[in-house]
Amino acid sequence: MSTRTPLLVLGNISTRSKILCLSKVLDFHHPHQLKDGLEGFSLDLPEHAETLEQILVDCRDTLKYGVSTGHPRFFNQLSSGLDVIGVAGEWLTSTANTNMFTYEVSPVFILMEEVLLKKMQSIVGWSEDEGDGIFCPGGTISNLYSILVARYRVCPEVKTKGMGALPPLALFTSEHSHYSVKKSAAVLGLGSESVMVVTCDERGKMIPAELESSILAAKSKGLLPFYVNATAGTTVYGAFDPLAAIADICHTHRLWMHVDVRPEQPKHFDHLIYVIACSVTWNPHKMMCVPLQCSVILVKKPGLLQECNKLGAEYLFQTDKPYDVNYDTGDKSIQCGRHVDVFKLWLMWKAKGSDGFGSQVNKCLENAEYLYDQLKRNSDFQLVFKHKPEHSNVCFWYIPPSLRALQPGPDRDRRLHEVAPQIKGRMMEKGSVLIGYQPFGDKVNFFRCVFSNPATQPEDIDFLLNEIITLGADL
Amino acid sequence: MSTRTPLLVLGNISTRSKILCLSKVLDFHHPHQLKDGLEGFSLDLPEHAETLEQILVDCRDTLKYGVSTGHPRFFNQLSSGLDVIGVAGEWLTSTANTNMFTYEVSPVFILMEEVLLKKMQSIVGWSEDEGDGIFCPGGTISNLYSILVARYRVCPEVKTKGMGALPPLALFTSEHSHYSVKKSAAVLGLGSESVMVVTCDERGKMIPAELESSILAAKSKGLLPFYVNATAGTTVYGAFDPLAAIADICHTHRLWMHVDVRPEQPKHFDHLIYVIACSVTWNPHKMMCVPLQCSVILVKKPGLLQECNKLGAEYLFQTDKPYDVNYDTGDKSIQCGRHVDVFKLWLMWKAKGSDGFGSQVNKCLENAEYLYDQLKRNSDFQLVFKHKPEHSNVCFWYIPPSLRALQPGPDRDRRLHEVAPQIKGRMMEKGSVLIGYQPFGDKVNFFRCVFSNPATQPEDIDFLLNEIITLGADL
Repeated sequence: MSTRTPLLVLGNISTRSKILCLSKVLDFHHPHQLKDGLEGFSLDLPEHAETLEQILVDCRDTLKYGVSTGHPRFFNQLSSGLDVIGVAGEWLTSTANTNMFTYEVSPVFILMEEVLLKKMQSIVGWSEDEGDGIFCPGGTISNLYSILVARYRVCPEVKTKGMGALPPLALFTSEHSHYSVKKSAAVLGLGSESVMVVTCDERGKMIPAELESSILAAKSKGLLPFYVNATAGTTVYGAFDPLAAIADICHTHRLWMHVDVRPEQPKHFDHLIYVIACSVTWNPHKMMCVPLQCSVILVKKPGLLQECNKLGAEYLFQTDKPYDVNYDTGDKSIQCGRHVDVFKLWLMWKAKGSDGFGSQVNKCLENAEYLYDQLKRNSDFQLVFKHKPEHSNVCFWYIPPSLRALQPGPDRDRRLHEVAPQIKGRMMEKGSVLIGYQPFGDKVNFFRCVFSNPATQPEDIDFLLNEIITLGADL
Repeated sequence: MSTRTPLLVLGNISTRSKILCLSKVLDFHHPHQLKDGLEGFSLDLPEHAETLEQILVDCRDTLKYGVSTGHPRFFNQLSSGLDVIGVAGEWLTSTANTNMFTYEVSPVFILMEEVLLKKMQSIVGWSEDEGDGIFCPGGTISNLYSILVARYRVCPEVKTKGMGALPPLALFTSEHSHYSVKKSAAVLGLGSESVMVVTCDERGKMIPAELESSILAAKSKGLLPFYVNATAGTTVYGAFDPLAAIADICHTHRLWMHVDVRPEQPKHFDHLIYVIACSVTWNPHKMMCVPLQCSVILVKKPGLLQECNKLGAEYLFQTDKPYDVNYDTGDKSIQCGRHVDVFKLWLMWKAKGSDGFGSQVNKCLENAEYLYDQLKRNSDFQLVFKHKPEHSNVCFWYIPPSLRALQPGPDRDRRLHEVAPQIKGRMMEKGSVLIGYQPFGDKVNFFRCVFSNPATQPEDIDFLLNEIITLGADL
């Protein structure tokens, strides 16, 4: 069955283009404009009830001044698209209005979580008797879990005695990895400086020899290395760390190997490598287009999550209940109440099947290749690196006419650095399309296009490039 | 405007009773029964897409075998009820499918968060130039934030250097407080043993003299006291710690005072006291009946949340954007992506007004008093303590006929301990009503009834007591 947005159901491509031109990605206003109450849209909270008519107007205005992340021309973030089955799943979830802490209040959702975790573990390549996991409020919390559990494995006493029970720890991640590793280290009381940032090659992949020497350097300083985060699909470049080489190093030094993974497509799961991973972060709200939020931490060793987080608060998790209380998940979690994030994924899996998810992801990869091909043949643009995209990220500069004759150097860099923000500003004002930009390392501001919305067509990519050229021609 | 559930709209009370008798709170099945595929309801995930007809059946079955937390006879948890405006808010939220990290992708929701936080801060009693906060995935994470920020205030270096930069810390909470304080201490690397558990009086209120001596004892052991969690509405008894006395002690010893608060009704906000609090956890998904999840941490000192959690990942949070980037909240949060939990609360506030929320909470307090009065006059029941309920919790034992002649002592206790679980088991099988039970301290299993659903009427409370008597008569 089709789960495309209504826009896509239109058979006539030129009609689709016309409609897309009329429907804005966003209707931008500055904070002070929205706060001043545009066309009567007041954010203030009343003492007395408003009328139902006014409530409906409030709803309309909220959507009007928001951003259409489901628009086929929203390339700003990886969480985009609007899957109708996923949205239906979220609607039913909010109607059920329950909590994931016990089987008692969520019998069906607790079992769905178990089924989904088992399925994802089998895709990762773990055997039937391996694997545990939990759905988390976002990928950063999933990564935090991986460090928390790895620390517990090194020294279970840390749970009661705190960091004082341990020598100073060291963990490792690449300079292109997500900032959640450092943030988690700060939250967990390890401190952000316990994170050793490993150098990458020009494509954003961790260099194994650099990891090895970083581990040895940490040891020589009296630190205890315990954890390596490998990224399979980095935020900016979409780069894949060399997982096999990292796995070997983790094996040699007996370190916890975590994989922060973005693709959810079997061909990207190299079982021989993932089997070695101690934990995996998987975010179905990215490439699988599940409505926000839907993120999972998978832990290979069963029981570890429970041991690490269990407090046995019997006033909440009674052991003399009339069913098998091993199904209560409250003691596995660092949360108490936990939002039901499983149903929308489960329902989408029913509606698409594994193969449906596969072809949906493939479509995004094809879009990335299409963009790459267009950029290569158009001298108005310059690719950040020459290789074909490994995944759905494509990074590039737009070179406005005034910069084309300039020699590479600090002057050109300084001026090029201002191009993307200016185009982005105009794009937001116009509301026709949305794409992200950022500087990275020694590279000045460049555009990063990511694809996760299966409603995006090649014509939307053509539109994006033309729009950048139009908006940036005078820069 | 009325935001009651459809059941309540019925004018005729006896019709309401008949309908409620027919509509079950739950249709209980054991995990193995549900996993075996009841009446063709399969949880398995397919390789290929299912038909739309099957998807609809899956949705129906998911609701059928779930628990109706919105049922007026669901007394099991504080998060109950089904507010139609709140559900509409959640539906629109999932349709908007965006993220709270930047103004760029969530202009309206970011401003709504600011408006809600300001309103809640003013209710707490903080002045215009005080106060900060953030919406969190549940009350446990809100409490975790309070400890995280308090630790940072003691020693900002902890963010980079970790717990090694600090002497061993001590924090304080009552024996009746929520287990999230201990869990957070474990997660944050302080260790659960850093939590000093302060003795309560018979009503579950922290004893200030015990707090004082606990602080002195910690100091004499070389620990650094830094944080006190006071609870305003404990989980089991609904008890209020003596906030004024605790505030004095915190002032004397210069400790961070956090208040974990349940009531959301102005009369419970004693401004003179809350003004002193450094942080407050407020969970609108409890007494305010906002759909799950909706929880807030309020921090009195502006800027502290941002300083504590900021990492300045410029590849995600660019500073050269075309709007005031102070509105981007990603660096205040320990999450990266953050679910939009503000809109449903904002919309409900519009639909009810502050006074609507007030009368909604009052209704729950009246229900608690009604139950208390019924229990006092019925010798089949025994109250856990004789005082009138301070809030919406009422704790009691049912004494079956066979136990009534027994003298108080270990034998009676042993038998009484088994009564509540057995009645609960029968209740779940029958599906007519749902209430929680637990042991606490030296008290054997007792029922705890909590009210947060404005759809609950006195007749539902009568029904609960009659049902307990019916199900427990032969025990």
